[in-house]
Amino acid sequence: MTMTEMNPASRNGVDTATLFATLDAVKQAPAAAQFQFRAHNEWINGTHNRSSIGDYFGVGEERTHEQTFVFDADHPAVLVGKDNGPTPVEFVLHALASCLTAGLANIAAARKITLTEVSSTVSGDIDLNGILGLDKTVRNGYQQINVRFSVKGDASPEVLRELVEQSRSRSAVFDVITNGVPVAIDVDVA
Amino acid sequence: MTMTEMNPASRNGVDTATLFATLDAVKQAPAAAQFQFRAHNEWINGTHNRSSIGDYFGVGEERTHEQTFVFDADHPAVLVGKDNGPTPVEFVLHALASCLTAGLANIAAARKITLTEVSSTVSGDIDLNGILGLDKTVRNGYQQINVRFSVKGDASPEVLRELVEQSRSRSAVFDVITNGVPVAIDVDVA
Repeated sequence: MTMTEMNPASRNGVDTATLFATLDAVKQAPAAAQFQFRAHNEWINGTHNRSSIGDYFGVGEERTHEQTFVFDADHPAVLVGKDNGPTPVEFVLHALASCLTAGLANIAAARKITLTEVSSTVSGDIDLNGILGLDKTVRNGYQQINVRFSVKGDASPEVLRELVEQSRSRSAVFDVITNGVPVAIDVDVA
Repeated sequence: MTMTEMNPASRNGVDTATLFATLDAVKQAPAAAQFQFRAHNEWINGTHNRSSIGDYFGVGEERTHEQTFVFDADHPAVLVGKDNGPTPVEFVLHALASCLTAGLANIAAARKITLTEVSSTVSGDIDLNGILGLDKTVRNGYQQINVRFSVKGDASPEVLRELVEQSRSRSAVFDVITNGVPVAIDVDVA
């Protein structure tokens, strides 16, 4: 028995014992899996604004991250901004990459596969004639998103590919981006 | 004539002269509006990974942001992570808030409305029985996203609400999230 087999809790940095215990706990109490995530945004100037991500609801109560994470967004000069942060659409690509990658590490650990390297590039093609209102046949958002993964680990190419496929099939952000979500907007002008 | 009327280029921090010049330039050369945005992600450990956002294509050539922006994502302990960053799904909420807010500032400037305060909270409801594979009737992603805007400026409540509505109707991220985008995934296991 190798150390890895003796101590599967450390595989890929995933605490698999806790992962399986969490799954069992949610099986017993499905309501624990009801979460609400939030971002609080403040406009700064022009296309520059800033979000704080700290509080959320989950496992039956209000919770906070260990720190409040703060992110700026802006447009580059070529899109009439000051480049104080990525564009909003670039954060969507980061969200997709990070969701697929987190899932991949969890699934690999659950299947007792040790990963040595995972990297990805997510690219999104967008025709800004849509948001600029110059061509009504062009959508506002990305027309196509492409993800290119590089995965290395102690399994066959077929098994490594299957990890990505399973991560895709269980990815929250992949679902949001490919299938869409209803969005309601309320405005307080008081 | 007030200073604001004499110098509309500064309204809301939006360089409206450049904004309109950009619109005219794209009208003359629509191909300039073809952009490709990218995020490069590296897995670190467990659910912790990191994206770099720096290079993109637009206005006919490869470009770079003024700096490379780096963002960590992770899961909190309650979701078997180390809380080194927000969850991937929280970045989706930031993307939506920042896109709607940037558009709002641009549209207000174009309509000669001076904004004094814009803030928003975006919340997303998600049942993790989906991604945990515990209930096949539950989707992986958000079931509903709600945006609550607070907008103040030198216009009537009706006009301020109309700014938000116009921003919504021209938002790239709102389109992506509500209507979905095709995502292709390639895997290199060499």
